[in-house]
Amino acid sequence: MAICNYSHFKPISLTPSTNRCRFESSTSRVLTFRCNNSLASTQLKAEPEPVLTSVKSFAPATVANLGPGFDFLGCAVDGLGDFVTLRVDPDVHPGEISISHIHGVESSVAKLSKDPISNCAGIAAISVMKKLGIRSVGLSLELEKGLPLGSGLGSSAASAAAAAVAVNHIFGGKLPVSELVLAGLDSEQKLSGYHADNIAPAIMGGFVLIRSYEPLDLVPLAFPAEELFFVLVSPEFEAPTKKMRAVLPKEIGMSHHVWNCSQAGMLVASVLRGDLKGLGLALSSDKIVEPKRAPLIPGMEAVKKAAIEAGAFGCTISGAGPTAVAVTDDEEKGKEIGYQMVDAFMNDGGLKARSVVRKLDRVGARVIESNP
Amino acid sequence: MAICNYSHFKPISLTPSTNRCRFESSTSRVLTFRCNNSLASTQLKAEPEPVLTSVKSFAPATVANLGPGFDFLGCAVDGLGDFVTLRVDPDVHPGEISISHIHGVESSVAKLSKDPISNCAGIAAISVMKKLGIRSVGLSLELEKGLPLGSGLGSSAASAAAAAVAVNHIFGGKLPVSELVLAGLDSEQKLSGYHADNIAPAIMGGFVLIRSYEPLDLVPLAFPAEELFFVLVSPEFEAPTKKMRAVLPKEIGMSHHVWNCSQAGMLVASVLRGDLKGLGLALSSDKIVEPKRAPLIPGMEAVKKAAIEAGAFGCTISGAGPTAVAVTDDEEKGKEIGYQMVDAFMNDGGLKARSVVRKLDRVGARVIESNP
Repeated sequence: MAICNYSHFKPISLTPSTNRCRFESSTSRVLTFRCNNSLASTQLKAEPEPVLTSVKSFAPATVANLGPGFDFLGCAVDGLGDFVTLRVDPDVHPGEISISHIHGVESSVAKLSKDPISNCAGIAAISVMKKLGIRSVGLSLELEKGLPLGSGLGSSAASAAAAAVAVNHIFGGKLPVSELVLAGLDSEQKLSGYHADNIAPAIMGGFVLIRSYEPLDLVPLAFPAEELFFVLVSPEFEAPTKKMRAVLPKEIGMSHHVWNCSQAGMLVASVLRGDLKGLGLALSSDKIVEPKRAPLIPGMEAVKKAAIEAGAFGCTISGAGPTAVAVTDDEEKGKEIGYQMVDAFMNDGGLKARSVVRKLDRVGARVIESNP
Repeated sequence: MAICNYSHFKPISLTPSTNRCRFESSTSRVLTFRCNNSLASTQLKAEPEPVLTSVKSFAPATVANLGPGFDFLGCAVDGLGDFVTLRVDPDVHPGEISISHIHGVESSVAKLSKDPISNCAGIAAISVMKKLGIRSVGLSLELEKGLPLGSGLGSSAASAAAAAVAVNHIFGGKLPVSELVLAGLDSEQKLSGYHADNIAPAIMGGFVLIRSYEPLDLVPLAFPAEELFFVLVSPEFEAPTKKMRAVLPKEIGMSHHVWNCSQAGMLVASVLRGDLKGLGLALSSDKIVEPKRAPLIPGMEAVKKAAIEAGAFGCTISGAGPTAVAVTDDEEKGKEIGYQMVDAFMNDGGLKARSVVRKLDRVGARVIESNP
């Protein structure tokens, strides 16, 4: 069982619910989701009625980029994430949603707005309500943050994913997963940029490659082996996504482009083959994004070195940081790698940090409680 | 059975020989070849003696780049390629090699030097002799060109691969496949650039991803399905590799970089899954190299359009061109696609062209005759 010793993460242990609201086929061999970004294909004939009075959903943390998978590849990690409790609420104006309560990780709660149009869960929920054509029912939403904001673990995507899945489920699960990802993208676009590499794996679970946005083409990449552990080490340091984006090069030399493309190919091949050594090599090999971002996170270069020296197959920045992510095939080894990385953050960067060792979340956002 | 109706291609039909000189394990699940570029690991203790008096080898044509796989991905196609006949020759100075005869495709023969240090087969043969430490035996080499030069089908790599495999085999097959690829790279470096995306699949067969050169890390990607057909349409037009390289951008915008990386990931995923639709989508999607090179090949844009309209899953330039390559799942459909592409070359580019429909060569360079 994975262990969480990071005080501001909420460790959870969930079994897949039969009420899961997602495509059943995301682990099939050659599945991709392609849809137009218009609603034409999913426009419903009649406004659906709620089939439940309340649901509680969960969506996992995600690791985007994975080195050379910058902006098009991400994966979900188990046991960390956000919860949404959604209720049919006669006190809320029909067709609208109200955020009744936000609790959980204190640093996150303090920064989040309860105005639905400024809240990642609220925006995704509204988008799903629009897609479903909800005009006659009001909803209230309670958000429980398990993830800190700005950690590089897809905090906003987890909230959006949990909200999107909850709204869809309370009305009978009419929308396909691609529409839920698009609803989540509405939220991501407003708060951190139009990138699906957090929201897609948060909703779908596992590894997801985003091949295109127009049309949306999401490619789940099933990892066939069991023994994949992520060591997530988060320092007490703020790395705002906007600042981490501003430092990226606008132009890339051809040799670095070819190098990163080949590493991206290796990353994908390694995921599909369950090849942890190859995955680690590829993960560590980014010559474009990580070299620009790592110097902005005190100690990151030493942390990566410490992870590799402690036996990790590879290490890079999770999302836009500051969390560092390493991969290994053994939980105990993962803990030791985590200790070494925490030490390196302190010794080289002067930053306190905590580590968790987590497995791949293969399920994605799901309903965990429902009341008729 | 694939059909060849291109007069200057030599169609061949080979069954895998038991004398094959390559790694047996290239179709295994998580195989990569990693080696240092030094000879330390393969330096032989004693000069090997020839175990045969002569061998005849074959190496297949290759399609490099495959759109977003630029400079790191290639595959071998069956039934087209070059032959080398190698003999122990007491009339040749010990430790040296002589090119006795070059024949086959006339346009190629006229342009090739019989001086071994200026000939792709000769350079690769010398490199293998050096790696083996041959000082006491002289060899004569006969090269039969099945491929035209400068067609974008890895003509020089096929000659180099056939020569490397022949020399290694006549001395008992002491060198691993990675050393044969390095020998072929010596040849490619001198004649067209230090890129292994033709020579690696020419030697190893199938699809090969080149992850790194230092150390050399070659990743075979097994295509699991049978029904993959390449439609190769070669116009009567010269597209020198140097000219086609000169037109490439030195710097690439971040959005195009991310796009091509994601397509490269999709390309690799599609190969490993045997997903022809995904393969075609990715193959057609290059926004960096193809848009610069296609305008230099009269009619290429119309040819691509014609291929897609005729039902191909995707189409791009093979290697540096001018051959266009499309993919399909049916040989008869492939012929029809080929006719439409030939028409488009004439109608839009004013170029005569011929087409062949070929399968994946999963074997790579191999010995097809040997005499004790």
